This record gives sequence, structure tokens and C-alpha cells, in this order.
Amino acid sequence: MVEADLEPSESRDEGSRFRPKFDSSGLLSAVVVDAATKDVLMVAFMNKEALDATRKTRRAHFWSRSRNALWLKGETSGNILEVEAIDVDCDQDAIVIHARPAGPACHTGRRSCFYRRLDFDASEETALRQL
Amino acid sequence: MVEADLEPSESRDEGSRFRPKFDSSGLLSAVVVDAATKDVLMVAFMNKEALDATRKTRRAHFWSRSRNALWLKGETSGNILEVEAIDVDCDQDAIVIHARPAGPACHTGRRSCFYRRLDFDASEETALRQL
Repeated sequence: MVEADLEPSESRDEGSRFRPKFDSSGLLSAVVVDAATKDVLMVAFMNKEALDATRKTRRAHFWSRSRNALWLKGETSGNILEVEAIDVDCDQDAIVIHARPAGPACHTGRRSCFYRRLDFDASEETALRQL
Repeated sequence: MVEADLEPSESRDEGSRFRPKFDSSGLLSAVVVDAATKDVLMVAFMNKEALDATRKTRRAHFWSRSRNALWLKGETSGNILEVEAIDVDCDQDAIVIHARPAGPACHTGRRSCFYRRLDFDASEETALRQL
């Protein structure tokens, strides 16, 4: 997250030092995009352990907030995310992972988790439509 | 976030009902992509108030965790994000905002907050390089 209208937190914004900023739960945001198409495939969280495992293995690992456990994406489904590059944001509390997906990124079998679009005005009952 | 290797939480995965899943802090993840280029511009959080304001005004609003306040992106800088579309993920705890940025999305003056790439193997002191 960047807060564009605030004073910058200078120490993390510039230079080559990687100093990830984990939140009060020890997490940062990870956005996975398809390295070929640039489509956003999924959004998840990483703690230090997941980030270190991802860098080391070049396969995306996350922290499961519901299970309280390290999670290798695709460990049971086979739908591994091979990491080509990782970009870091200004204040180092979010990363973008450019990945080659081995299969559907979504547990529903869809390529991306973002398969529905929100209507701006509709009532909540009918606000989502399939893409 | 989707947890591909777990049982799906069926109620939110399918259908047209919008039922955003806010976390224990009342937040969901919002990824802003450039509607023209698909580049990820920034990642932030929204509470219900920010989400409602974004839908109503079609300008991206967020919740500032550091300031504990609703935040219209560009309110002081002028760098508004005009929202063209909002996509929702399977379990409805993350959204992708397709936006037309009025100016640099990053408070450093760069187009995107993701202007550095992480080396997989380098020491932390030299791990980031400018894109």
C-alpha cells in the first residue's frame, strides 16, 4: 500500500535495500499476475517464511490465515506457480509476483480467481456477473 | 485470497450475489491495475465505507491503516484513479480495480508503486534494482 497523500517513509522508498514491511500480523500482500498475459490471477498474503521459501524455490508460497500454516500453492492440486520475477512496491509492504501457472490458479478450476465483475449500481443480490 | 488446496467456501464462489468478505480488521485487499496497460499500479485496503464510496463516485477510495481514515486517492495530489471496472475474486476478499490514472499513482512520482525488482539470491542490502 502506498499512501500518496502522506509524507513518504523515505527509508524504504529508494535504493536497493530490501526491507519488507510486514503488518501487525506479520504479513504482506502478494498479487500474482500471469507473466504472459499480465492478468491478475490471485491475491494472497505472505509472511517472512513464505517469502523466503518463494525466493529460494521460485515457486509461490503463501501464508494461510485460515489454517495458520505455510502453503505451497499447488501442493495438492499440482497447480504450481513458477515465479519469473518479483516486484516490490515503494513502502515494501506489497509485492507483485510474475508467474507461469501450471494450471488454473483458482480452486474453482478457473484460470484466475477474478472471474466476476461488480456492477456499480445494482443491488447486492445481482451485483456480480461472470466475465 | 483463494486457498486452492482447501475446500471451497461455496456460498461466495458462485452466483451473482455480492457479499464482500472483510477480515478481522474490516478490510479487504484492493489491487489497482491500469485499465489501458494492465500494469499493477498499487495495492491498498478498503473497508466497507471505502468500497461504497468507490462504487458511488467511481473514484478509488481506500482505508488508510496508518491514519485510520477514509482516503480518496488523489485528494491532495490530484492524481485521482477513475474506476472503469471492479472484478471480485472467488471468496470475495479481494478486488481488482481497473482504473484510468490522472497522474502518477505512486507518491514518489512514478507511474506505478512497483518500480523495483527483487533479486532471488542477492543479499538484502543489494536485492532491489530499479525497473
